[in-house]
Amino acid sequence: MAARRAGIVGTGLIGGSIGLALRARGWHVTGTDHDEGRAARALHLGALDAVGTDHEAEVTFVATPVGAVAGAVRAVLAGGDGVVTDVGSVKAPIVGAVDDPRFVGGHPMAGSEQEGVDGADPELFAGAVWVLTPVAGTDPSAHALVRSVVSSLGAEVLELSPEAHDTLVAVVSHVPHLTAAALMSVAAERAEDHRALLRLAAGGFRDMTRVAAGHPGIWPDICAENREAIVEALGALVASLEELRQRVSAADRDGLLGALERARRARLNLPPRIARAGDVVEVRVPVPDRPGVLAEITTLATELEVNIADLEIAHSAEGASGVVLLLVEADRAERLRGGLVARGYRPAVSPLE
Amino acid sequence: MAARRAGIVGTGLIGGSIGLALRARGWHVTGTDHDEGRAARALHLGALDAVGTDHEAEVTFVATPVGAVAGAVRAVLAGGDGVVTDVGSVKAPIVGAVDDPRFVGGHPMAGSEQEGVDGADPELFAGAVWVLTPVAGTDPSAHALVRSVVSSLGAEVLELSPEAHDTLVAVVSHVPHLTAAALMSVAAERAEDHRALLRLAAGGFRDMTRVAAGHPGIWPDICAENREAIVEALGALVASLEELRQRVSAADRDGLLGALERARRARLNLPPRIARAGDVVEVRVPVPDRPGVLAEITTLATELEVNIADLEIAHSAEGASGVVLLLVEADRAERLRGGLVARGYRPAVSPLE
Repeated sequence: MAARRAGIVGTGLIGGSIGLALRARGWHVTGTDHDEGRAARALHLGALDAVGTDHEAEVTFVATPVGAVAGAVRAVLAGGDGVVTDVGSVKAPIVGAVDDPRFVGGHPMAGSEQEGVDGADPELFAGAVWVLTPVAGTDPSAHALVRSVVSSLGAEVLELSPEAHDTLVAVVSHVPHLTAAALMSVAAERAEDHRALLRLAAGGFRDMTRVAAGHPGIWPDICAENREAIVEALGALVASLEELRQRVSAADRDGLLGALERARRARLNLPPRIARAGDVVEVRVPVPDRPGVLAEITTLATELEVNIADLEIAHSAEGASGVVLLLVEADRAERLRGGLVARGYRPAVSPLE
Repeated sequence: MAARRAGIVGTGLIGGSIGLALRARGWHVTGTDHDEGRAARALHLGALDAVGTDHEAEVTFVATPVGAVAGAVRAVLAGGDGVVTDVGSVKAPIVGAVDDPRFVGGHPMAGSEQEGVDGADPELFAGAVWVLTPVAGTDPSAHALVRSVVSSLGAEVLELSPEAHDTLVAVVSHVPHLTAAALMSVAAERAEDHRALLRLAAGGFRDMTRVAAGHPGIWPDICAENREAIVEALGALVASLEELRQRVSAADRDGLLGALERARRARLNLPPRIARAGDVVEVRVPVPDRPGVLAEITTLATELEVNIADLEIAHSAEGASGVVLLLVEADRAERLRGGLVARGYRPAVSPLE
């Protein structure tokens, strides 16, 4: 049996990790980088089988800096018939600029302080959330293919609209990164007068500023592409800090305690990083021949906090209609069914054989 | 040989950990808590030999909430002849309110998300920085005693003036804590509309908000006692975030890159948590009979980034003058000597026998 073939454009930390992970699972991986030395290094490290472009690749991962993604995706789409996905940290501008049924936007929420292919790790995605942003125009089989490949790397797939993705990562990723840098700047400024400050920096401060040690090269792009959401979320953070400052200044003990208590409860309620493995049931959803059905079903599942353990599309013998088969946690199946019925679907829930 | 005797007032997480650590080193530890059940629990868990007050204790650690420290310290001082230290997160108000030669202000920079004596850990201080804040009125032998006991628990001792301590912990501890809470609040607010947000919260966000999971009960006190420094540092952070927001909004790529690059360099320059073990030499400093000499020498060492591995006071046979013996890293000894000479001391540096 011939190996399945994948392409990678951009063999940095993420592209290299995808290459290592796919090759460990038997794929044949071909890749390029605009820096030829980096592609050669990826080949040397075993992240690629060959340097170059595989026009027959079943799926190609575009892992360039965010600003270059849309152009690279269009080039790959023009050069072959395969499915294309990307790993950019911002989705709406990219998805809007590509608009092709064979493209599925993606964003693995995984990273490392290391930089470049030398930091690549085939286990980087194990247990990580990998967001996909299918839209109405996305070919369901392209979506299902990317979902299954990404799942096979150990990631937990979560479908979101490109816009929701961008709003949310501004809050949980982009603004925290900028905040770590701001905290570090304030500390560094004070350290000019008091060198001892840096020796006082204990566990909490180190944890809070760790991401600031990452290479900043990717951030101007990210901030440019997700400007609006970042500016808004930074504004909300500044307002929240100003409120705390007022409370400290006014010695408002009760207000302070209340605010910290609410934050504590929210932090304790963060779901565990890896979805619970539990009983799963099958939800069969007959779907009409209408664009966007799979994107709608999967993003609805995300909204309803229903984790999709597996997904398959069974096409009917004739015509374009078919059945979407979802494996979901048993105790969430009824919730998903309710949501689907509300949207006009006729799902059936059944235990696994 | 009779065991050395220590007292503990306030048997929570820190007090309990001190009790466990001292008992593991052969001390006899007696302690109280205003909550009798908690003292009984500390006894049960092996953090105390006895519940009560040992008026003969050589050293007593006051580990109550910050607002209650000064009163508790004065009560212990009035009840016996031993040395007293505390573990409060704010120092100037406490040191100012006590003003007794037998009191040495302290602050172990160690903690845990756990709460209460059930989270106590005899190794909590291993490798942690433990700040001491001796002042001109502090009895040098009281200072040296606390230093040696605290060092024996595995902590790295750092002397600072009470005021410098408060300014610096506002930046590296208090404001980061409030920032974690503010980030969590902004995220929790957004999560009301988009439950998926919480599942996107990956490693970086979790690291940055971890301290917000701690019990908030201690914070109104800390914020009240260190109000001025916290308000100022929060103001600096807000200004730094506002500046980043302007840069994102204006798509100022170079400005953004420069700011993140500076933060990165500062983060990479954080000294390792534990001082390097290297060659040490002895610095002998003849000291006059003048108050504040030991506090001056040790805080000078901190300013000069000279780590004191060990400290001893050798009194002359007659009179109150004597010699302070310091063990310091060999490659820093000349720097310390220079600083001491500049302050009028006549230090001698010699290799260890």
